[in-house]
Amino acid sequence: MRIVAADTGGALLTEDYEPVGLIATAAVLVERPYRTATLSRARYADPFNYDMSGRQAIRDEALLAVELARETKPDVVHLDSTIGGIEVRKLDEPTIEALTITDRGKEVWRDLVKDLQPLAKKLWEETGIEIIAIGKSSVPVRMAEIYSGLYTAKWAIEYARENGKATVGLPRYMKVEIRPGKIYGESLDPREGGLFGEINAETEGIGWELYPNPLVRRYMVLEVWRE
Amino acid sequence: MRIVAADTGGALLTEDYEPVGLIATAAVLVERPYRTATLSRARYADPFNYDMSGRQAIRDEALLAVELARETKPDVVHLDSTIGGIEVRKLDEPTIEALTITDRGKEVWRDLVKDLQPLAKKLWEETGIEIIAIGKSSVPVRMAEIYSGLYTAKWAIEYARENGKATVGLPRYMKVEIRPGKIYGESLDPREGGLFGEINAETEGIGWELYPNPLVRRYMVLEVWRE
Amino acid sequence: MRIVAADTGGALLTEDYEPVGLIATAAVLVERPYRTATLSRARYADPFNYDMSGRQAIRDEALLAVELARETKPDVVHLDSTIGGIEVRKLDEPTIEALTITDRGKEVWRDLVKDLQPLAKKLWEETGIEIIAIGKSSVPVRMAEIYSGLYTAKWAIEYARENGKATVGLPRYMKVEIRPGKIYGESLDPREGGLFGEINAETEGIGWELYPNPLVRRYMVLEVWRE
Ligand SMILES: [Mg+2]
Ligand SMILES: [Mg+2]
Ligand SMILES: [Mg+2]
Repeated sequence: MRIVAADTGGALLTEDYEPVGLIATAAVLVERPYRTATLSRARYADPFNYDMSGRQAIRDEALLAVELARETKPDVVHLDSTIGGIEVRKLDEPTIEALTITDRGKEVWRDLVKDLQPLAKKLWEETGIEIIAIGKSSVPVRMAEIYSGLYTAKWAIEYARENGKATVGLPRYMKVEIRPGKIYGESLDPREGGLFGEINAETEGIGWELYPNPLVRRYMVLEVWRE
Repeated sequence: MRIVAADTGGALLTEDYEPVGLIATAAVLVERPYRTATLSRARYADPFNYDMSGRQAIRDEALLAVELARETKPDVVHLDSTIGGIEVRKLDEPTIEALTITDRGKEVWRDLVKDLQPLAKKLWEETGIEIIAIGKSSVPVRMAEIYSGLYTAKWAIEYARENGKATVGLPRYMKVEIRPGKIYGESLDPREGGLFGEINAETEGIGWELYPNPLVRRYMVLEVWRE
Repeated sequence: MRIVAADTGGALLTEDYEPVGLIATAAVLVERPYRTATLSRARYADPFNYDMSGRQAIRDEALLAVELARETKPDVVHLDSTIGGIEVRKLDEPTIEALTITDRGKEVWRDLVKDLQPLAKKLWEETGIEIIAIGKSSVPVRMAEIYSGLYTAKWAIEYARENGKATVGLPRYMKVEIRPGKIYGESLDPREGGLFGEINAETEGIGWELYPNPLVRRYMVLEVWRE
């Protein structure tokens, strides 16, 4: 199976580890044996001006995933929204009403569906590829989350080059290592069976440290500075 | 403490990782230091014709556990049903009504109790051994789950010898390795303190690969083929 | 950030692994990179005469944390109570009513607040240090839990010297090792990013074994005996 998935993660943090805004949306192509991504792509948000309602994230993820899907022709596209693995092109008012999610979740989806349903319908009509809202159960969605952490580290390096230093929070239980010419990362949850990723990056002249976020257990903080 | 427990796990999967049916019920005898099984026994189901309501599984587990308990005389028998560690021989209508479980769970237990209560009462009268419905909190139940994964791998080898290949899903966060003359497996959750198991098996002429199930995070897929 | 936190953990167990009572309250000072404690302190309870309602624990934790905070002047104090990171000095009847916790939780806090609110107000007025009820999300609270496990092991050694042997249950997914002159411990959850601790202890002439508690998955049992 060839699966494209997308997710958003990584946050700029204040000195006191308070989140300012999210940083990176990543789309990945994942193929057997499903332990890393064959291809990845990222879009950066402006963490200083970020809509934290979650609406922006899922919209960005769908757009980036469709872009990667049109190029790579996967069997299916996975989005990080846990509404029971429903095909997004089939979502309409009555289907949303029937979902077993919170009222706030329904409100968000009533709004999202205006953009996403036509997008999914168009992709399906032109390529036969379904977009499903499978959420956390999907390994490719987790892989996209790990890649959003890798691109967050890349963003932090670039930010530190310009501003001296950057403190970012990585997605849940993952770590990164800044190596010569690349950024490597992996899940800290061995139950996931060894998920990892790697992207290229200019890493010269950069110092870094990774440590647990004292305020949010199971999340790591990455500090990056110009040396 | 010497504990007998039973559980059912492992599923035959389609090429698209859809479950067809469950494969193996395992009963184990677990003794101090509680990291593996001293003895194990399995009963195979027919995954092509499997009752997925959960009623069959718990009935099979109780029967197999009682069989092993009669031979090994443990202090207690653990079943994988989370109804508060109640002694099964004491289960009656009012007790089931008072359980803090779902209505569907009560319905299942109202049905199950007809077979299991007399079974438990008989075992207790003849041997003094209690059967308790302790569920996921029990390490021996988890050990039985791991052994159901080992026997699932054994079933897959035999199936592949006859049919060329088999794709099976293992129980939650565990891995297996097919070694000469044996199948080894262990929990992927280090919080469990190092649980593992091993069974004998004919493994010659068999190729295999283990990888994350892309549709069900934290579950591994085992593919086995005739070489 | 410099954070003081406190927690209570470790239980004396019967031969059948039934808990008798809790053993140790630990307070810790945690500083960057937040992987261990810079300082720790413990108060032992009498496990044979322990109030299991949880009221005693949080009161002991607050007192010990304030004691350590007065000496070490941290930025903030973390308590293991998950009521949304509220400042304890601001807790009053209407605030407790508005909490999204169980009715029993509210009852406990209505009672606790009589002692803890004045304690927190006094600390804040004299030092500017807030006490917040952040709970399990806090890494320093988890560190205090790990240290309560280390001090539980120390208590077990002393108990075994007097009584021959001791069986204790450690806090969730952690292990300890009794080494010459010290007790080392670490989290068994790699998602936490490598949390560990160490305390000094007289360890000569002591034998020990660590293994999974068969009745409580993801918790370890420590047995200690006089050699
Ligand atoms: Mg997401
Ligand atoms: Mg089961
Ligand atoms: Mg506590």
